[in-house]
Amino acid sequence: MTRELIISLDAMGGDHAPDIVIEGASIARERVPNLRFIIFGDETRIVPLLTRFPILKNSVEVCHTDKIISADEKPSQALRRGRDSSMGQSIQAVKDGKAHAAVSAGNTGAQMALSKFILRTMPGIDRPALATLIPTTRGESVMLDLGANVECDENNLVQFAIMGAAFARTVLSVSKPTVAILNVGVEELKGSDVIKEADRMLREANIPMDYKGFTEGHGLGGGEVDVVVTDGFTGNIALKTAEGTAKMIANLLKRSLNESLLSKIGALFASSSLLSLKNHLDPNNHNGAVFMGLNGLVIKSHGGATASGFASAIGVAIDMAENDLAGKITRDLTNFNSTVEESDEAENMNDDTVVEMNIKEKK
Amino acid sequence: MTRELIISLDAMGGDHAPDIVIEGASIARERVPNLRFIIFGDETRIVPLLTRFPILKNSVEVCHTDKIISADEKPSQALRRGRDSSMGQSIQAVKDGKAHAAVSAGNTGAQMALSKFILRTMPGIDRPALATLIPTTRGESVMLDLGANVECDENNLVQFAIMGAAFARTVLSVSKPTVAILNVGVEELKGSDVIKEADRMLREANIPMDYKGFTEGHGLGGGEVDVVVTDGFTGNIALKTAEGTAKMIANLLKRSLNESLLSKIGALFASSSLLSLKNHLDPNNHNGAVFMGLNGLVIKSHGGATASGFASAIGVAIDMAENDLAGKITRDLTNFNSTVEESDEAENMNDDTVVEMNIKEKK
Repeated sequence: MTRELIISLDAMGGDHAPDIVIEGASIARERVPNLRFIIFGDETRIVPLLTRFPILKNSVEVCHTDKIISADEKPSQALRRGRDSSMGQSIQAVKDGKAHAAVSAGNTGAQMALSKFILRTMPGIDRPALATLIPTTRGESVMLDLGANVECDENNLVQFAIMGAAFARTVLSVSKPTVAILNVGVEELKGSDVIKEADRMLREANIPMDYKGFTEGHGLGGGEVDVVVTDGFTGNIALKTAEGTAKMIANLLKRSLNESLLSKIGALFASSSLLSLKNHLDPNNHNGAVFMGLNGLVIKSHGGATASGFASAIGVAIDMAENDLAGKITRDLTNFNSTVEESDEAENMNDDTVVEMNIKEKK
Repeated sequence: MTRELIISLDAMGGDHAPDIVIEGASIARERVPNLRFIIFGDETRIVPLLTRFPILKNSVEVCHTDKIISADEKPSQALRRGRDSSMGQSIQAVKDGKAHAAVSAGNTGAQMALSKFILRTMPGIDRPALATLIPTTRGESVMLDLGANVECDENNLVQFAIMGAAFARTVLSVSKPTVAILNVGVEELKGSDVIKEADRMLREANIPMDYKGFTEGHGLGGGEVDVVVTDGFTGNIALKTAEGTAKMIANLLKRSLNESLLSKIGALFASSSLLSLKNHLDPNNHNGAVFMGLNGLVIKSHGGATASGFASAIGVAIDMAENDLAGKITRDLTNFNSTVEESDEAENMNDDTVVEMNIKEKK
């Protein structure tokens, strides 16, 4: 990586802003020397923080904004009055070509609405989707949508699959990712009509992915496929259920290991192994969901992320910007649409032929 | 418990039938002395197995059936040709008043279709739902529907809430269970119209439950509420995601604890604590989902259940039969419907008043 990489940050979003944003930026800057930040927010709070992280000294431009989007603001409110907020400005910087990607730990609905309004969706994409990495036994998988769209049709799901595959090729370094739609069974006759139609369309599509059909909730943890496609309602429930289950087990494990002297000794011996497992499952280490399908990169961090978690989200932004995620999606969409058009043409030709034959017979 | 309790068993359903069914019955019989079974299936396979479990000798009636419902049979096929199968007969025994409940580890779709056809839904219930107990940090919660209905309307969800609350009062021994609808956020403005309408109806309902509004996937593992209400698609995905996540963590934990000598020693010291945690999370110990809303009790066991898991499912059948689940649901439904009718009457009166005023004004 030689060129300068510029990330715009909403310093005011999230439960521990602006502190973890600035500290997260310094962690990311330590890892990536030619990284620069444009930081939007209340300069009276940001500037004093910067003095604690000298590494940021020559890598940061602070742009003061008065407005902050609150956690409970509705997307419609954010659109009306939030464009000159720290969040809105961080996205505007991407639109204006001043930054390669924007990162915020603020209000998800507001970030989605502002991103869509300012950057617009890519040609061929009806709705953006929120995608993230989830930990599995094999490593990590991509899952989308995570809540940007509560209801989806078959075209949305197909577009999510294309975008998810591009995400996996960028971040997981697999050339032909395996992709499946989340369903209540793996048989083709199961699930809603929308899911069955999306399944049919993906079986016929000519895009660089290895489409596997349906996958069940059981398959998520095992990393059965690289990309799990689902509507935003189901994806949000599945992701949070997985996180909640992991947290429940961690709590029960902690309680179990504290219940006797023997188990406490055991925990002490196994502590380094337990710690590495904890790290693999810690949502902070998989932080950074991407709003896919926009004309520009916007990354959503968990609202409760730690500084190291926020640095992970910046890391995702860097990966995506460096590896031309947008270009990959555009190329795959073009291929997919030309396949569909060809098969439409083929169908039309058949219709014409049939009509011609009818005419001849009538003659 | 003094009266005799009779459970009908489909001996031929599930991955390890009939062996685990007979062994499971013997485990259950050891726990509950006045328990009797009517066992349906291939007697040439069942009778030799019975000799291995002398405790069953005077507690079992074997009814031979030739037909078995296979795991890949469609519900419609099962309805056409499955009524005299071991599964169909086990349900018919409940209909005929010969058994208090039926248990099968066979094909879920077939069991649902046959149960609905033979027993019919209770007055006031449009669709049955599949409910089960899930492990949480606090103990257990009830979740429904788990896949009987892929798409649900607001009335279905309200009926699920009423049935789930009755389930919780029966099995969890709470007099006023906390109930919530699974959603992508806890704010009232989130989610689909169906969910929002069901939420509104439950807020106004007068039934013995403490309705809490919405809960998120995060809340499942923590046991935030006693009863989690959702459509069958989401419930199926959430349950399997939770089970898959628990399995993934168990695998990763096993791998971690095997990776060094120190961690192996640790695991040895902590083995009894780890075992009790494993038991709490083992799906076999939470086995036994109930088809709710039918005129009779039908219990679904995991297809891959162990004998001890199958005994848990029989235990659920006993709990439900002993504690008059059906009676609780009927009473709550009657109360709910009379509340709705009263409020409808109130609305009508208002309309009349408005009409009267208009007439007076025109005069």
